[in-house]
Order: sequence, then C-alpha cells, then structure tokens
Amino acid sequence: MAQAGRRPGQNETREAILEAAKQRFASQGYDGATVRAIAGDAGVNAALLNHFFGSKQQLFAAAMNLPINPAEIVPLILDGPPEQIGERLVRMFLSIWSNPVTRAPFLALLRSATTNDEFAATLRQFMEKAVFAKVAEAKGIPRVRVAAAAAQMMGVALLRYIVAVPPLADASDEELVTLIAPVIQHYFDG
Amino acid sequence: MAQAGRRPGQNETREAILEAAKQRFASQGYDGATVRAIAGDAGVNAALLNHFFGSKQQLFAAAMNLPINPAEIVPLILDGPPEQIGERLVRMFLSIWSNPVTRAPFLALLRSATTNDEFAATLRQFMEKAVFAKVAEAKGIPRVRVAAAAAQMMGVALLRYIVAVPPLADASDEELVTLIAPVIQHYFDG
Repeated sequence: MAQAGRRPGQNETREAILEAAKQRFASQGYDGATVRAIAGDAGVNAALLNHFFGSKQQLFAAAMNLPINPAEIVPLILDGPPEQIGERLVRMFLSIWSNPVTRAPFLALLRSATTNDEFAATLRQFMEKAVFAKVAEAKGIPRVRVAAAAAQMMGVALLRYIVAVPPLADASDEELVTLIAPVIQHYFDG
Repeated sequence: MAQAGRRPGQNETREAILEAAKQRFASQGYDGATVRAIAGDAGVNAALLNHFFGSKQQLFAAAMNLPINPAEIVPLILDGPPEQIGERLVRMFLSIWSNPVTRAPFLALLRSATTNDEFAATLRQFMEKAVFAKVAEAKGIPRVRVAAAAAQMMGVALLRYIVAVPPLADASDEELVTLIAPVIQHYFDG
C-alpha cells in the first residue's frame, strides 16, 4: 500500500494490481473477475492496468507468479519448423520444471487445483480460454488434441517432480525429449 | 477392536490388519513398513495376513481402498492381443475414473501425493516396485516407457476429472480411447 501523502511509484501500483487480481481470481474465478473490477480495487483505471499487464491472461500469469506468459506459448509453437513442435514444447516444459524457482508456482497451481474446487474452476477457465483455445486456433487442430498433449506433460511433471518415481525422476532431459517429444508431435500433427 | 472375551471374526481381523497397514504405510512408507510389523500391530501372524491379502502390494491397495489390485494389471496387459494393449489400458482407466465411487480413492492418492511429501514417497515406492517394475518385466520394455504411459493417463485424469477442462471433460470415453490409446500402445511397443 502507498503511504498517505506520497504518490505511489510504479512498483507499488503494480503490486496493488497484483494483490487485487489474486483476490478477485480467488473469489470470482478467471471468467468472473473482470479487468475493470480488479483495476477499481487497486485504485487505477483499466487503461493503466492494461499498460502494465497487456491482457487478462497475462495479468493472471503474473498474479500466479508463472514464469512463462501464455502469450509466449503460441509464438513458440508457430515459430520454427512445424515438425519440431514436440521437441520445442518438451524442452521448454522441462527447463521450467527442472528449475526449483520456476517450478514452484506451477507446483502451487497443481496443489491448489487438486485440493480446492474453486481454484480448479479458475484454472479450468484459464486453461480453456487462454491456452487450449489459442493454441488450437493458431495451429488449426482440435482443442482436445492440445489438451491431450498438455495432459502428457502435466503427468510427466507429476511423476518426475512431485511423486519423483525413479524411471522418470532419474532420466536425463535428453532421454525424456527422445521419449515424449514424438507423442506431443503426434498430437500437434492432428 | 474385538471386545474382551469374544473371539474376533474374520471381518474384525481384516479391519485390524487394514488399520495397522494404513498407520505403518503412513509413518514408514511402502518400503519401510514390513508385513511382519503390520501383522504384529494387528495381533496376527504374517501367515494369516498373507492368507487375507496375498502380498504387500495387495495389502497396500486394500489399505488405500483402491478399486483395482496391482496384481490384476499385469494379466490385463499380457492377456489378449498385444496390439490392443493401449486400448485395453485406456478403457480400464476410464472405467475406473468415470465412476465417482471407484474414482474417489485414486483422487485421494493424488491429493495426498501433491500435498504431503511423506505420502509422495510411499506412493513412489509402491508405483516403482509394485507397478512399473512388474509391468516392464512382464512386457520386456524399459520401465521409463511404462512410467511415460502412466504419466499420460494420470495427466488425463487430472485435466478430465479434477480441473475438468472442457475439451477433455466433455469428450466421450470412445473419443478418448481413439485419441489416447495409440499413444499408450506406442510406449508399450517399445
């Protein structure tokens, strides 16, 4: 919070927006929480909020401390050779999950989603609209194929980093790229 | 507990063993909890425990209320045409997860594993020894391929039944068999 009599700096405004976003997303879900309402809670207008965060998707990613912005996923899929989408996605995914700092917020998402129905609903709306729909549209494939690829990678994260079962926990990133990338590629080849 | 002066019936003995198993698995993990110690806690000998439950794997499955016994998975994989392993496994998996009664204990496992490190260790040891090692050996493929197939199915369970994201939550079982079975088959074809 800014102290009385002092004009809040950019960092304080940004923090106030993030705090308001966390509370609105938690209480109203991804669909229910509007950018206008979050801006109002933070005492700024929607234009300033958009200046800081760009979009509701990006605001959600920032509020959840996600190390990757969903807006970055679509270019990653479309840029580069289409026959290497599987490999690019698996490498990006493993690089995020193998680093404890960037893994932590995804782990928090997964824990919250498995134990709190309201949070699961928020995550559901975000994944559906900000990730699956956009990737499927960009690539021209059915959403269910994008979701199946995401399921493969989330299952690997669960068994490799949370349950830490040896055959997955012990494998090198390269072994996993060789094993999993063809499956992700298969889903994206539609 | 049996009342003083009355010989405990089979159901009471079975319940006493299950209660002792739950406590030992929770406090010592799957590897640390011995059948002998669990039998001792329940006031029976190991031979009687084995008469009731057959093996430590089956005792663990019973203590966790799992609707499927790991000893049943290997025959399911080996019986029937090898080129339909993927389809058989996906159908079995969806039939367990689509029924709220049989889903509940797996959901409890998943929740405990994502929020409790000690439970994650217990589940890790069980999956490694009672599931992945036995299936890999029976089929003659590397364990990491069995684990990757399990990761695909657990990720589908997470997104279809917990986060409940529409493209996976709305799909029919038949659509999912068509989509996922080739991937499971790919892992099992080694």
